[in-house]
Amino acid sequence: MLIISINAGSSSLKWQLFQMPAKKVIAKGMIDRLGTEQAEFKVSYGQGQKFKQTEAILTKESAATLVLTRLKSLKIVEHLEAIKGVGHRVVSGGEVFDRSTVIDDHVLLQIENFSELAPLHNRTEAYFVRVFRDLLPQACQVAVFDNAFFAHLDPINYLYPIDKKYYDQYQVRKYGAHGTSHRYVTLRAAELLDKPVTETSLITLHLGSGASVSAIKSGQALDTSMGFTPLAGIMMGTRSGDIDPSIIPYIMEKEHLTDVREVIKALNNQSGLLGVSGLSNDKRDIDAAAAAGNQRAQLAQEMFNNRIVKYVGSYWALLGKTPDALIFTAGIGENDQGVRLAVGQALAHLGVKIDPQANDMRGQERLISTPDSQVKVYVIPTNEELMIAQDTYDLTAKE
Amino acid sequence: MLIISINAGSSSLKWQLFQMPAKKVIAKGMIDRLGTEQAEFKVSYGQGQKFKQTEAILTKESAATLVLTRLKSLKIVEHLEAIKGVGHRVVSGGEVFDRSTVIDDHVLLQIENFSELAPLHNRTEAYFVRVFRDLLPQACQVAVFDNAFFAHLDPINYLYPIDKKYYDQYQVRKYGAHGTSHRYVTLRAAELLDKPVTETSLITLHLGSGASVSAIKSGQALDTSMGFTPLAGIMMGTRSGDIDPSIIPYIMEKEHLTDVREVIKALNNQSGLLGVSGLSNDKRDIDAAAAAGNQRAQLAQEMFNNRIVKYVGSYWALLGKTPDALIFTAGIGENDQGVRLAVGQALAHLGVKIDPQANDMRGQERLISTPDSQVKVYVIPTNEELMIAQDTYDLTAKE
Repeated sequence: MLIISINAGSSSLKWQLFQMPAKKVIAKGMIDRLGTEQAEFKVSYGQGQKFKQTEAILTKESAATLVLTRLKSLKIVEHLEAIKGVGHRVVSGGEVFDRSTVIDDHVLLQIENFSELAPLHNRTEAYFVRVFRDLLPQACQVAVFDNAFFAHLDPINYLYPIDKKYYDQYQVRKYGAHGTSHRYVTLRAAELLDKPVTETSLITLHLGSGASVSAIKSGQALDTSMGFTPLAGIMMGTRSGDIDPSIIPYIMEKEHLTDVREVIKALNNQSGLLGVSGLSNDKRDIDAAAAAGNQRAQLAQEMFNNRIVKYVGSYWALLGKTPDALIFTAGIGENDQGVRLAVGQALAHLGVKIDPQANDMRGQERLISTPDSQVKVYVIPTNEELMIAQDTYDLTAKE
Repeated sequence: MLIISINAGSSSLKWQLFQMPAKKVIAKGMIDRLGTEQAEFKVSYGQGQKFKQTEAILTKESAATLVLTRLKSLKIVEHLEAIKGVGHRVVSGGEVFDRSTVIDDHVLLQIENFSELAPLHNRTEAYFVRVFRDLLPQACQVAVFDNAFFAHLDPINYLYPIDKKYYDQYQVRKYGAHGTSHRYVTLRAAELLDKPVTETSLITLHLGSGASVSAIKSGQALDTSMGFTPLAGIMMGTRSGDIDPSIIPYIMEKEHLTDVREVIKALNNQSGLLGVSGLSNDKRDIDAAAAAGNQRAQLAQEMFNNRIVKYVGSYWALLGKTPDALIFTAGIGENDQGVRLAVGQALAHLGVKIDPQANDMRGQERLISTPDSQVKVYVIPTNEELMIAQDTYDLTAKE
């Protein structure tokens, strides 16, 4: 059975085609600058074969059509009917969806209704669901919600210490993000630990340009650093993470701003590594500058590590037991040995011991703690696409 | 030598008169509803003697004058000239003052200039300095800054992960609060631990209607949960503590608010225990309602404990070593055995073990952990007034 996973952004479309249940990637590709005359269409497939073309792709319909027609013309699939399931990444499932779900008209309406909670994402994702439903009417359309993994947080952890009417009336709560990634590495860690996932305690660190830390107990998310929106939690590429909210009116007054959204925009886009360093939101640029002696880059590095250490500590306490493992994943987590080593060293008194030789690598799934470390530390490259395909396969097979 | 400590609020004046260096309280009192026809003047002194009067006290000058004349008329002091030092609690010392300081004209100007950082406090405090300087011209006036204890945080901890210009231009940083209390219990804990304070590692929990947690290493504050203002950190009586800043514009939109300060006001005054429970900002009311089965009160209790546990965990990680002790202080910390027990139990896997019998008390200085607890847990009633008097005495003696 072929399953295609779809990850749609406002100006991009990423996809992977899997042979399931073998979990084999048949092809993957993306369209960048979607909506322009200079869109870039890329596919890799077969034994390292590649196809690339710059062309006008102006609508979501033409983007999706092009993906499917090229699957045929490049002879990646013989008949499109072989694609039995389409799995859509959906950023917000609100409070409603605690798991991946087959999309019927009612579900689609709900996805559109959550747009308020994820204004940049849900509407686009829902639109692509409609497009793929038209193009592949025989396939099962599945929504894989990025926050479903956090739907079962305890109210103690998902509620904010604010007037409860804001939750009751407007659903202000912690929704979390990166749930598909945290779930993927959780399931994979249980395999590596050779334990049922229900018997594991983990702290998972999804460190990319967006970044979050989660406490996972018995395979269920207990808490996560992202909040009502992805602005909260640890320091990120351009996002501040947690700050004293009183800073907002103070900055508005100082800068003579009248619209609070201008400050929120600065906290989302001009903060984090970029704001502290003044150089870049890319950790690799920061590391290079820091190595060359740039003090603001060094400060950005240290602040980034510091916020991770503090969140790991808070979840270590919250778990109520020593975690079985810490899991590093996503761009920085998989590739930045400096962050992994610094975080591990900061936690030495809690029994964490990184093996510098094992840690000296990029992007591999590997145990990087020493045999005598009281807590295992793994790097597990995340695979949200596979998680989407797996959920889609499971639901399609049941239909 | 007599030293008077002054803690002035917008409508109150609290004071204590000490015999130093004996640390003996000669008298203490307060004026409530200052500025009204129905102000309440209270003193206790001698062997349980009390004086109380409701009267018009309309100005700060008359309040201070009344305190001093009554010290004489009640024969608490023979000559006002015996008062050699006046110690003033000052909320903000900005970034300038890292310790208590004798107040000359220049210092007084600086205190007034920090008003922007503590709009409700510094101006009033500066005014009282002028009043007491006029009334007791022979006495040494000393400022004891509530955030001086946090002046030496590392930039890694005091800077926010936001555009650095906000610090460079507007001094947006973590200032902390309750520093005099955290310092007092730190010094006292070192005595109880029978160690030089420079060799201690502590996590201090000042839990009152305002509340903060600090990590203290070698007697120096390493980090603290309060931020740019006292809104940040753990959940409090009416303050939210940390929230996702994106909640602010969302609430403004939903409630059709145009002024961000209305939301900040709600976060300061309608949140925390009050906002979650819908009942009260007083932990005792919450506990009573929770015991009677009120679910929102139970939720408020659990959220309150949860935020403390997470901050303790983050500082446990940050300290880089197992702390010697956790210290509970202030109204809730000293009197609420439920919070102490819940926090201690949540940290059992980190080696904390509360002795329920030792913990079964209110307001006493006591070790409440078991002999086999790997981390000592103390209740230490705070004494900011004594700390103010001590600093004032030390500086007065040097002048």
